[in-house]
Amino acid sequence: MALQMNTEELMAFLDREFPQITGEFTIEDLGEMRIRTRMTVSERHLRPGGTISGPSIFALADVSVYLAVLAMIGPVALAVTTNCSIDFMRKPEAGVDLIAECRMLKLGRVLAVGEVLVFSDGMEKPVARASMTYSIPPAG
Amino acid sequence: MALQMNTEELMAFLDREFPQITGEFTIEDLGEMRIRTRMTVSERHLRPGGTISGPSIFALADVSVYLAVLAMIGPVALAVTTNCSIDFMRKPEAGVDLIAECRMLKLGRVLAVGEVLVFSDGMEKPVARASMTYSIPPAG
Amino acid sequence: MALQMNTEELMAFLDREFPQITGEFTIEDLGEMRIRTRMTVSERHLRPGGTISGPSIFALADVSVYLAVLAMIGPVALAVTTNCSIDFMRKPEAGVDLIAECRMLKLGRVLAVGEVLVFSDGMEKPVARASMTYSIPPAG
Amino acid sequence: MALQMNTEELMAFLDREFPQITGEFTIEDLGEMRIRTRMTVSERHLRPGGTISGPSIFALADVSVYLAVLAMIGPVALAVTTNCSIDFMRKPEAGVDLIAECRMLKLGRVLAVGEVLVFSDGMEKPVARASMTYSIPPAG
Repeated sequence: MALQMNTEELMAFLDREFPQITGEFTIEDLGEMRIRTRMTVSERHLRPGGTISGPSIFALADVSVYLAVLAMIGPVALAVTTNCSIDFMRKPEAGVDLIAECRMLKLGRVLAVGEVLVFSDGMEKPVARASMTYSIPPAG
Repeated sequence: MALQMNTEELMAFLDREFPQITGEFTIEDLGEMRIRTRMTVSERHLRPGGTISGPSIFALADVSVYLAVLAMIGPVALAVTTNCSIDFMRKPEAGVDLIAECRMLKLGRVLAVGEVLVFSDGMEKPVARASMTYSIPPAG
Repeated sequence: MALQMNTEELMAFLDREFPQITGEFTIEDLGEMRIRTRMTVSERHLRPGGTISGPSIFALADVSVYLAVLAMIGPVALAVTTNCSIDFMRKPEAGVDLIAECRMLKLGRVLAVGEVLVFSDGMEKPVARASMTYSIPPAG
Repeated sequence: MALQMNTEELMAFLDREFPQITGEFTIEDLGEMRIRTRMTVSERHLRPGGTISGPSIFALADVSVYLAVLAMIGPVALAVTTNCSIDFMRKPEAGVDLIAECRMLKLGRVLAVGEVLVFSDGMEKPVARASMTYSIPPAG
């Protein structure tokens, strides 16, 4: 399976469809069935003490799987998350970007499943682990 | 088990500890091992078409379980989410607040487990279902 | 939505399609979008000390949602579990049957979502909580 | 962190503490924070058509994380599963053993988190993905 969209096309699609999150996420690496995404941490992601909020970590995992799916199937804005399981394992470093390493485990006709490890940039041990299922709308 | 905090105390605690989310969440009903929470939907929660973002729904479920735990054990800012499983089942109504109905299923010495149904205000069928585990720091 | 199968039809279907588990599960109550199922505990479900194994509790939750789905859509052997999230919260009572209270939260064209609370028979506090997604094969 | 138990010690512990499952599981490879486990498929794991039951796949993931935890912390029979999320992605091959590749992501004082990919022996694409949390009893 070849990539249907490259990094520039994915970012342009994201900016156009989801203007609310422009500038938050950057694709660092893209391949077949995998992506690495950076979340540029800013004030809106923080909790007291400088830690990053759970919803922000969820958002990073979610957008990473979404982009990995789009890269494989093309610009289908209607792909939707149907399930997420997430384990929060360590406190993120204060003031450090988050990196998501995402791998697609299944890309079916109806459902796609991806798994994500989230790291504080430069750290070896993951902050969180997530698995997400996306429902893919019928072609046509 | 009696409530350790009432609605006013919980809201004051939330405003003080999490000023970033002030005004987003309101407690509608509080009881032993249960809470109903409203998310006042605004621009920052939306996606194109007026639907509410997944991270916003996650945030509502998360804060609901957090408040339900605090109500039972008192103001322990360090309780942290360790796991969440969430099913997104229906598209939220555009421009309508979300309501979370949360019930605690376990309140142990170390772990608390709550489940949440999220509704578009006034609708019968849930938008999402979530279960969350919180780790409770040792007393002392 | 009316029931497409009654208790007797469901049990006959289960015995015919899944002879390996004959006698393990009994339907105690059946309604639209809900079911109560009993697992008759025997030697094969046990772990040392008389507790019931995790896989046995998983099996009870899984079969309960499967039966609740079949009751609503008719005998479709090919409905398959695609996701399960389960929280084990308390040790089951030794030598006591398990009861699953299952409620369907969504019955879509492609996906069905159910949630289950599992109890030791007669106890008030749940042993486990599960949510399951089933993929429904296209009609044809 | 060095291994506290080797393959022979783990298998002897499993046989002694869980005699019901003797012969089902074999350790194929063991390292720090990782394990590969084989489930020898027999009649009791099967469903009509030769496929392997969901509870059997769950059991393999569960025992793999349990053994990986024990290998790191020593023989603590009381470590218990508190949460599992599992995605069933493909139908297992009929009549073929299952292989679990397990990696521990966190080994804390109170909680351990592992992730597992399950394969039909010799196949490249995973049958299932699971993440499990174990609660570790206090030392004493």
